[in-house]
Parts: sequence; C-alpha cells; structure tokens
Amino acid sequence: MSAPEVEAIVLVSGGLDSCVALAWAQRQGWRLRALHVSYGQRTEARERAAYEAIADYYQIPASRRLCTSVQYLARIGGSSLTDPSLPVETADLGRSSIPSTYVPFRNTHLLTIAASWAEVVGVNRIVIGAVEADSSGYPDCTRGYYDAFNTLLRVAAARGPIQVETPLIDMRKADIVRLGYELGAPLHLTWSCYKDTVRACGVCDSCALRLRGFAEAGLADPIEYAASPLGRNDSP
Amino acid sequence: MSAPEVEAIVLVSGGLDSCVALAWAQRQGWRLRALHVSYGQRTEARERAAYEAIADYYQIPASRRLCTSVQYLARIGGSSLTDPSLPVETADLGRSSIPSTYVPFRNTHLLTIAASWAEVVGVNRIVIGAVEADSSGYPDCTRGYYDAFNTLLRVAAARGPIQVETPLIDMRKADIVRLGYELGAPLHLTWSCYKDTVRACGVCDSCALRLRGFAEAGLADPIEYAASPLGRNDSP
Repeated sequence: MSAPEVEAIVLVSGGLDSCVALAWAQRQGWRLRALHVSYGQRTEARERAAYEAIADYYQIPASRRLCTSVQYLARIGGSSLTDPSLPVETADLGRSSIPSTYVPFRNTHLLTIAASWAEVVGVNRIVIGAVEADSSGYPDCTRGYYDAFNTLLRVAAARGPIQVETPLIDMRKADIVRLGYELGAPLHLTWSCYKDTVRACGVCDSCALRLRGFAEAGLADPIEYAASPLGRNDSP
Repeated sequence: MSAPEVEAIVLVSGGLDSCVALAWAQRQGWRLRALHVSYGQRTEARERAAYEAIADYYQIPASRRLCTSVQYLARIGGSSLTDPSLPVETADLGRSSIPSTYVPFRNTHLLTIAASWAEVVGVNRIVIGAVEADSSGYPDCTRGYYDAFNTLLRVAAARGPIQVETPLIDMRKADIVRLGYELGAPLHLTWSCYKDTVRACGVCDSCALRLRGFAEAGLADPIEYAASPLGRNDSP
C-alpha cells in the first residue's frame, strides 16, 4: 500500500527562496499547487512573469495555480515597496532597524489567503520560503512568527488540520543557493530585485543578499545585473 | 494631566454586532477609525451602505475610514455567502456542524488588514464585534481564536504593540441588543441579513439570531422584515 498523497500549496513570489521552497516540496513527492499574491509592489509584473515561468517549469496546470492581489496594501502604504514616494534604500545588511521595504503583516496576508484556499480544496500543507537567519530583519520571517501562525491555524481551521512548512527558515542564503542547485531548481527564471524590472539593480537589500549568497556558495548567479556592490557581474 | 488618547480601528461590517462594538469603543472615549471589508458576499452593497451610514452617525471623517475588498475570497469559493451556486441555508440555530455560510478564515483576513492599517497609522487597538456564545459556530468567533491572533500580533507587530479587543465575545444576542440600546447605537441603520438586500429575509441564520435577540431582550427591532420564523414582524 502506498502512503496517501500529500498535497501542498507553495507560495511562489517569483524570487529565489520561493523557487527553492517549491523545488523542496516537489522533492518530498508532494502534489503541488502554486499561489502568487501581488500587493502593489513596484516590480509586480516582473515577479508575476517569474512565477508563471517557474510554475510552467514544474508543469503545474492552470487549475492548480492561484494568482491574487491584495492591492489594499498599497493603499494602506507605509512601505517603499508599494509607495512610489518612498525611496528603496541601498543595501545595508548590517542595519539593526526594520528597513523601509517592510510591508506591515505582508506574510500574514499571504498565508491567510493560502489557508483559505487550502481549506476550500482540502490541502493540509502550506510551504513558504521564509528565511530568518539571513533575512532583511522582517518580523514575519522568524520561526517564532510561524509557530504563532501554526497555533492560529490549529484553532481556526474548520475542516481538518493545516500546517505551514518553512524548509528554509534556518538556512543562510548560500545554503539556499546550494540547495537550489542540488534540487535542479530553475534559478535562472527567478527575480529578486526590489527596484528594477529589466535588469536586477544589484544594490537593493534583496539583490545584495542574493549576490552575497551566490558568492559565498561559490556559484554563479545565472541572472543579469545592472550593477553590483560586491563588484560581481558589473555590466557596461 | 489627561491620559494619552487611545485610538482604535473598529471593524464595521454594517451589522448589529459591529455597530454595538463601535458604540462601545466610543463610550471608552477612544478616537475612532472605521474599517469595512467586502469579500464578494451577496449583500455587499447593502452592508456597505449600512457601514457608511453608521460611520456618518458617529461623525468619523473620510480620512479615518478605510473601505477595502478581498474579492479573492469569492474566487476561492467554498461559502454560500460568496458563491451564488450554493444556497444559503434556512436557519437551524441548533445545528452542530459549521454552516454553509462560513467563509474560510474570513476574520483572519479582516484582522490582518486592520493590523496593517494600525501599524502604518500608529494605532494600537483593533475592535471587532465577534460573538462566541450565541454565534453560528464559526471557528474564528471564539475566544481561543482571538487569544491566538493576539499572540501572533505580539510576535509580528514591528512598530509597537497592537491588541484586538472583543467586547461582545461572551455576550448573547439579547445582551448585545440591550447594550446597543443603552449606548444609543443606531441599530436602525444596521443590516444583518445574508440573503436579501431590500427587506431582511427573516429566515436565514443571521436574521433568526437577530430576531431571537430582540425578542429575548423584549425590545423592538427597528428594521423591516419580509418574513420571520419567530412570527414577529411578518409583512404582507
């Protein structure tokens, strides 16, 4: 007798981490669904294109994809990712405060959409590529946050248990890059930049974290950059 | 010296409970903001009109109101409140299962929007008129649920504490009606029906709970009904 099939909703932003999280879920042998949520961020169209390309790569049919929007987050404002009047900070990976790119409670919105979908279609796993160890210092990327969210799910799930899995939570970016390579994840299809939509800027927090990860892993980043604070991939 | 002013975001659906919760927050002396979230439900336009009328009554200016939509809940489906192909059940207040009107994780979506807004504008109270004692059996209307959500807020709030208040959680509907009368809440402006948009149907769960509440409180419901399972307010 074979074990019952596990089905998982994977949050796929189009970035590096969520692509590796999807590859990880596939390696578990889980049947995959892909959820993408735009929230009025600057690079939304580019991220969505990356999401579609990654979902195509894993042959996830349209009936198992959900693409939604929480545009009210842009209306509420408060983040340089969604408010064009606020500049995106240049990388400062050593800063101790929460950066301007933080979107208040963003991951709670994303996970709650995943939970609603999970309950309606009868899925009991949600996978998110959140990273605590080497992140930008967002409070919704900590293990404590996911423990609290899973406690909420135990109380609020009406039709069977739903559990959020965070396979990358304790990894550093270099580990994630290595894991992505090992799993054959299509990292060339991913998009991480907070600023631009044609070539990654190379200088925002997200680009800087990604570039440092590839450098520490000793692997080449397959995407193109306009500039790099680490002196790699500088383009004319 | 006067105490520092407390400011609260009150979730105002347009129904009886949220109207009384708003009246309660006003009685605390708190500065009020009103949040209304539509989620693709059948009676959305009617509920929104009730919300606007109630916010007008309390003289909440437009700058302190936020009206948003989580239309993806209707796309995800699974509830007779948002899916026209599913019938709204006739009231059965004694049933033990979760009724078809349940929208998976609805209150988590609403509270997370309130939390994002609270963090951006620097508010530290959120008020919701959730009721456990005399409700339709939704898992997101229990004290345990709000305890878990407040735990999540303690972990996820990045710019100071945010606390959800549930002043009605242990009240029965009759107590809420009485409290509304005591506080001078504009109950004539509220809308509770799940089915209709001109005259309340009188037979859905929500109408049945409301009518029973007024009957037990010995007070007249100031809104009109098309029919009533309790034999009150029957119209030709």
